[in-house]
Parts: sequence; C-alpha cells; structure tokens
Amino acid sequence: MQSSTKTDPATDKAAALKATLEPINAQLYSVEERIRQQARAFDPGVEGYVAYAIESNGKRLRPALALLAGGATGEIGPNHFELAVVVELIHAATLVHDDILDGAEKRRGQPTANAKWGNAISVLLGDCLFAHALKISTGFQNGEVSRRIAHAAADVCSGEIIQTQRRFDLKLSVPDYYKIIEMKTAALFGVATELGALLNEAPPEVITALKTFGLRLGSAYQIYDDVVDLAGDEAKAGKTLGSDLRKGKLTLPILYLLQQSDPEDRQRISQQILEGDDADVSLLVQAALDAGAVRNAVATARKLLREASAQIAVVPANKYRDSLGMLVQTLDDMIAPFGA
Amino acid sequence: MQSSTKTDPATDKAAALKATLEPINAQLYSVEERIRQQARAFDPGVEGYVAYAIESNGKRLRPALALLAGGATGEIGPNHFELAVVVELIHAATLVHDDILDGAEKRRGQPTANAKWGNAISVLLGDCLFAHALKISTGFQNGEVSRRIAHAAADVCSGEIIQTQRRFDLKLSVPDYYKIIEMKTAALFGVATELGALLNEAPPEVITALKTFGLRLGSAYQIYDDVVDLAGDEAKAGKTLGSDLRKGKLTLPILYLLQQSDPEDRQRISQQILEGDDADVSLLVQAALDAGAVRNAVATARKLLREASAQIAVVPANKYRDSLGMLVQTLDDMIAPFGA
Repeated sequence: MQSSTKTDPATDKAAALKATLEPINAQLYSVEERIRQQARAFDPGVEGYVAYAIESNGKRLRPALALLAGGATGEIGPNHFELAVVVELIHAATLVHDDILDGAEKRRGQPTANAKWGNAISVLLGDCLFAHALKISTGFQNGEVSRRIAHAAADVCSGEIIQTQRRFDLKLSVPDYYKIIEMKTAALFGVATELGALLNEAPPEVITALKTFGLRLGSAYQIYDDVVDLAGDEAKAGKTLGSDLRKGKLTLPILYLLQQSDPEDRQRISQQILEGDDADVSLLVQAALDAGAVRNAVATARKLLREASAQIAVVPANKYRDSLGMLVQTLDDMIAPFGA
Repeated sequence: MQSSTKTDPATDKAAALKATLEPINAQLYSVEERIRQQARAFDPGVEGYVAYAIESNGKRLRPALALLAGGATGEIGPNHFELAVVVELIHAATLVHDDILDGAEKRRGQPTANAKWGNAISVLLGDCLFAHALKISTGFQNGEVSRRIAHAAADVCSGEIIQTQRRFDLKLSVPDYYKIIEMKTAALFGVATELGALLNEAPPEVITALKTFGLRLGSAYQIYDDVVDLAGDEAKAGKTLGSDLRKGKLTLPILYLLQQSDPEDRQRISQQILEGDDADVSLLVQAALDAGAVRNAVATARKLLREASAQIAVVPANKYRDSLGMLVQTLDDMIAPFGA
C-alpha cells in the first residue's frame, strides 16, 4: 500500500486541473456524454470508429474553455455545449490525422486508429469527424458562429501543412514558428473562448479579449508541449525525448539554440538536425538545455501566459472568469520548472 | 496525318459533354478561374499544393450541375458560382484522400499529390481543401445552404469509410452498395442540383425534383465508373482493368455475378475475390461479362438515368433544363455500349 502515498505527478496535474475547473466540472461531464452521443449520429458502419476516436482520457481543454468563456459572460446555455462538442471533434479529427503522419502507435496509452485499422480507415475517420463537427456547427442560429469555426478549422489545417512542409527547414524563423503554432493549436483555443462570449452577445471588447486570451493560452500550451518533448521526463511522458527533432520539427528551444549559437556551432547543430540519428538528438537536447534555449522558450511561454492573464481584466468578475485565471496559473505551474 | 482523321473516343466524349453543356460553357470558364483563385486565398506555404490539387483536366461535372440547376430555376447568380466552387473543392479533397488510400501514382495522367509529396502532405492537403470549402460555404446568406453542404460532405466521408471498411466483405448486399454510392458520390451531385434551385428560391417540389435528379445521375455515374473499371478498354482507361476488385471493392457487376451464381459457382467466385491475384481478377471480369452481370449493372444505371430524366418534367422548360436532360442522354450514350 506504500505506493499509494507516493506523489504521482500525473495525478497531481489532473487534480490541479480538476480543481481549476471546479465551477464547470459538472457541465464537463455532460459535455463528455454529448461527445459520446455523437458517435451514435453516424451510420452504424462508422459509429464504432468514431466512438473509439472520441473516447479518450484527453483533458477536454477546448470544451472547458468554451464553457468558461460562456460562464464568464453570462449563462452557460445549450449553444455552449454544442460549441464545446464541435471544438473537441475538430481536435479529435486532427489527432487522428496527426497519428497517421507520425506513424504513431499509441496515444494516451491506447493504440491509435491507424495502429488498429490502418491508414485508409484513419484518413477517412479523421474526415468523418471533421465533417461532422462542421455539420453541427452549421446548426447555430447565428451564422457568424459557424463562419468563425470554419475559419479556425481551416487555420488548423493550414498550420499543420506548413509545419509538415517545413520539417528540416533550417531557415524556419521564430516568427514562422509562432505563426505555425498560432494556426495549428491556438486558433482552436481562440475560437472556443471567442465564441463562448459571442454566443452570450458579450460586448465586442470582451469577445476580443477572450479570443486573445485563448490564442495566447493556446500558443503557450504548444510551447509547453514542445518543451516537454525535449526536456520532459522520459518515464513520465512514456516516450523517447526529442521525437519532434527526429521528425524534423524545429520547435522554439531549438530555434533559440540556433539563434544563440556562433556560426561555427550553428553549422554543427544544423548538421546534427539534418542527420538526426539518436546520438545527435541527445546531443541537441543537451545543448538546448546547456545553452539556456529551453529556459528561454519557457520564459516566452510564461510571457504569453501573462499576456493571456492581462486580457481577463476586461471580463466581468465571477467564478468562471477566476477559473480562466487559474487555468493560466496551472499551466504556468506546469511549465515553470522547466525554466529553473 | 492519317491518325488525325481517326475517331478518338476520349475526344469524342469531351466534345459530346461540351455540346451538352453549351448554355453554360462560358460560365464554366469563369468557375474554372474562380477555382484557381482559391489557391491564392491560402497561406503562401500552402498555395502551391492547393493550386496543384485543383488544377485538373477534370470534367467539372458538379459545378456544371450547380450552374444548370441555377439556370433552370432562374438567374445564374454569384451564389451559384460560389456553390460550384464549393462542391468542386469538396470533390478535389476526396480525390486527394482517395489517392492516398489507393496508393495511386497518377490521376488523369498527372502524378498524384501523394506521389509528388508523400502521404503526410497529402492528408493535410485534403484537409485544407475540405476546410476551405466549408469555410466558403458558411459565407452564404441563407444558413440552410451551408447546412446542406456540410451534410453532403459528411455523407461523402461516411460513404467512403463504409466502402473501405467493407472491402472483401462478401456479405455486402446490393442495397448496401446503393447506399455506399449514394453517400460517397451521389450526395455531392444531389446537393449541387438541390442548392442550385434553392438559391433561386424555387418551389419546394422543384428543389426536391432537382435533388433527386442529381442523386440518380450521381448513382448512375458511379455505376458507369464501376463498369468501366471492369469492362472498359485498358488502353483507353490507361489502367489495368479490375483495379476495384484487386482492392476488394465489390461493385455492382460483381454483386450481381454473386447473386446470379449457383452455390457452387458462388463458392468459387468468392474464393477468387478473396485471393484476388491477377489471374483470378481476369477470370472474374470474364465471368461477370459472360454471365450478363455487367449487362445487368448497365441496365440498372440506365434505369437510374430514366428516373433522373423523369424528375425534369417538374422543372420549367428552358435551355438549362434541356441541358440537364442532354447530360442524362450523354451519360446514357456512354454506358449503353457496355450493356450491348
């Protein structure tokens, strides 16, 4: 029984997130139920695949943002639940396709769709989830809602393709990186918070503030993810570090490392990135840590989180707004140790 | 110079189609230009891929249907051009993903996206085209338009996944086949004609008739495609016959062959389908021809075309309506010889 008294960081993180989302935990259960119901909306031949893809131990961060932005600006109504489902389905679609691109065997400890059913079914499964999400989104009374969702979805796809296209591209700049992560990750966070407010007909400045909040939080979250891939705990992450580097994805710490290096070092680092065998990847990870490039990326993420926090001032004070603030704090607590 | 006097069936077919679409040939050029312009709406990093995927020698049948349904019910306005672009982009997205599933190297004589850039870019390129189409579709004033487009797109994806899931499934019934082709192919034809009329606020019975017209034409077109894959001219098609069978796709002629055979033959045919080496495929193609299964499939397609024609009676008479009728006739002329 001794092990149960040990601190499990994953459980800690989940507990922290649960505490942060306290005002909407009951509603999140209901979102979960609605997400599961989506599978039943499909043809029986498709239902099983969809059910598998959306059943997950995911954090449902995007739905949480949609609900919190709703609560912060008025009632959390049926439209907010719809919005929560739509953003999560779009996210689920991108995960299914990402796993094909990466040839990933597991996600959150479960076999990926491509590992279970091959690439053909998985390409189509992602398409189905995506089409279904956009189908639901056309059900909103206010056409502006489906318009913005479709724009965000297009941004996500474009961000992903640019990222893929620029693998191993040493000319990738830090602004290029920002643009990619804002498209592929932050756009969906931003549309969740923006539309959470828009559905409540919040004043334009509140809608804009919540959109910016979501965008900054999303970018910070992606940088966190990228830092963990380089500097996380292999045992905890359940995967080898540097997997982005192996795939040629140049993330912020590596871009900082290149920027900070003198020409000679940069030459050597570039070569290691392009050759990319396991020994090179380990050297690069160590170099990014030693040179303070990881620390600098953490500092950038924390700066984005402060920018997110600053937006909250415009939003009327209530427990949902406070929860948005705590969400920023929770992410800051998660990323800060990597900058120490 | 002798060869130029020979009849080239491909040129003949193109000429027949062009004559059929005479009332909208000028507008189709404009659609072509608009389709090309779409590439420029993307981020520069994505533009080149999109341009390649939508630049094609395709027949632009779906845009033609949208315009003709518009002309048959009133003015062909800017909304019809938008609709034409949207249905073609959705179609283009499915082609990009289909080519990944099939590992196809060429389409219409050009290297496929996956042959040029690999599967990763192609998965995302299809996603981008799809997302962009749905983004445009949310621009229609009438929310019902984007709603029906999203529904059709979801049907296309579901049809594709069911077809893929049921490869080599000898329990596939003829009604299952109809359902699959109605979803994967006819849905997009049907939404093009339906919305062409809806955008002109045509009476409900005309909208329904044009929708049914598109659905039947689409199903007949898919059966034609499936017959050509079995019984076409290898040299003309530029591909080996029986490619559907090799992939385990059980199309109407094969389903009829199974249905018509006595238990012993059915057993043997089933085995040949499952084993599916080149010799087996040739035997099956021959058997489908000899048993009249191809002829029966042709008869079914022609019946669907007559059902399409019957719908036209409800539509007010004008040159666009006549063109829709001629389109049915052109397809009938194309498929009839296979039933001889």
